[in-house]
Amino acid sequence: MKRRGTGLATSSGMLFRQLFDRDSSTYTYLLADERSGEALLIDPVLEQVDRDLQLVSDLGLRLALVLDTHVHADHVTGAGALRARTGAATISGVGGPGCADRLVRAGEVLRVGGVELEVIATPGHTDDSISYRAADRVFTGDALLIRAAGRTDFQNGDAGQLYDSISARLFTLPDATLVYPAHDYRGLTVSTIGEEKRFNARIAGKTREEFVTVMSSLRLPAPHRIHEAVPANRACGMAATLPVQG
Amino acid sequence: MKRRGTGLATSSGMLFRQLFDRDSSTYTYLLADERSGEALLIDPVLEQVDRDLQLVSDLGLRLALVLDTHVHADHVTGAGALRARTGAATISGVGGPGCADRLVRAGEVLRVGGVELEVIATPGHTDDSISYRAADRVFTGDALLIRAAGRTDFQNGDAGQLYDSISARLFTLPDATLVYPAHDYRGLTVSTIGEEKRFNARIAGKTREEFVTVMSSLRLPAPHRIHEAVPANRACGMAATLPVQG
Repeated sequence: MKRRGTGLATSSGMLFRQLFDRDSSTYTYLLADERSGEALLIDPVLEQVDRDLQLVSDLGLRLALVLDTHVHADHVTGAGALRARTGAATISGVGGPGCADRLVRAGEVLRVGGVELEVIATPGHTDDSISYRAADRVFTGDALLIRAAGRTDFQNGDAGQLYDSISARLFTLPDATLVYPAHDYRGLTVSTIGEEKRFNARIAGKTREEFVTVMSSLRLPAPHRIHEAVPANRACGMAATLPVQG
Repeated sequence: MKRRGTGLATSSGMLFRQLFDRDSSTYTYLLADERSGEALLIDPVLEQVDRDLQLVSDLGLRLALVLDTHVHADHVTGAGALRARTGAATISGVGGPGCADRLVRAGEVLRVGGVELEVIATPGHTDDSISYRAADRVFTGDALLIRAAGRTDFQNGDAGQLYDSISARLFTLPDATLVYPAHDYRGLTVSTIGEEKRFNARIAGKTREEFVTVMSSLRLPAPHRIHEAVPANRACGMAATLPVQG
């Protein structure tokens, strides 16, 4: 199918769209090879599957892969539903849900057409957290947020580990690398590695010890859907496998 | 001041950021000349002025212009507050608020450093609605939304006029032109002229008469802040000039 005027192709011929779920403030990303029409989604939200598939269809794309950056605690992934409706393969990091078609490790490269994503291990928010780097941008999940970082107080989170992930694996990318996180709560849509190195409120200029102190003093309330979301996401978001309600 | 790693520069050296106000589902846009650091904001929201100025500061920019696409009915503009705090000039279309520093007409070109915006008259949602075209993208306000169009039932709205604005002035731009509207309620962040010509639910494939029928049958409730927002915006969003209550 011919795709005309789909726009936002990067210099590498990658089509790119950012999508937002207002209820959970989650960003979902659509990437595709403009030539072959093969596409992938990163961190889809179950309630937005119809919207996402409509856009894939409008743009004349074929969904090949669905990626999660980690087992989310604040929304239910659309991965399983998207696989059921399109045949796309679902991908998570090692330690992620056993229902995924493939669990990937640091250094592995995923390809859809000419689009390449390199897996970067960024544990700390959760133990299975990974980031995906594609050309000039990196999808950081909840590891590195805009001016912030994901909480580390559940799902085997570890503040020291998150410090190492951000400082040694994300902040060593080129300063101009675009940072696309899984959430933003203030309406910011993108940042850069250079900006976060200078302005990130939780980590910029801090030692590992100081960062651990900051993260352990946050005392955040639990995400209101955590008891639903984590078991659902361990089943790739498929309702049929949700635990029976008490 | 040196700006490093600010990212998202277009091929024309334009820095670009999209910002979202979750309460009103409004998109605000920051554009700047990467070299000179001169910046402009399109459709800022009063409650987000601190956020926007922080970003301008982080990126080492100087706010020169604040643009509104029209007198909004669903949020209060940040234009007056931004002018008061930065000295930036405020711009609206002819028919817009008298407090604006400049009211622009179709064909006029605004410049901040090397960034040029051409004014396109796109009345119909309101009689003062304009769009701004910059390089490969167009900021359409509420005239052309993603898969939709702004309502035409108040503020001298006119469905026939909106049809003409979209079909003769926006849909004649190149198909690959990126469409950045003032709102989206489903979490879509961008579209293209080509997409909207094919998939816009309200206008694609419709005659002028059919479009007028569609728009007149919408029967939408009034925006819940209209009685506050319109007078406030006619005063550039400055609270001191709001009419006395009761």
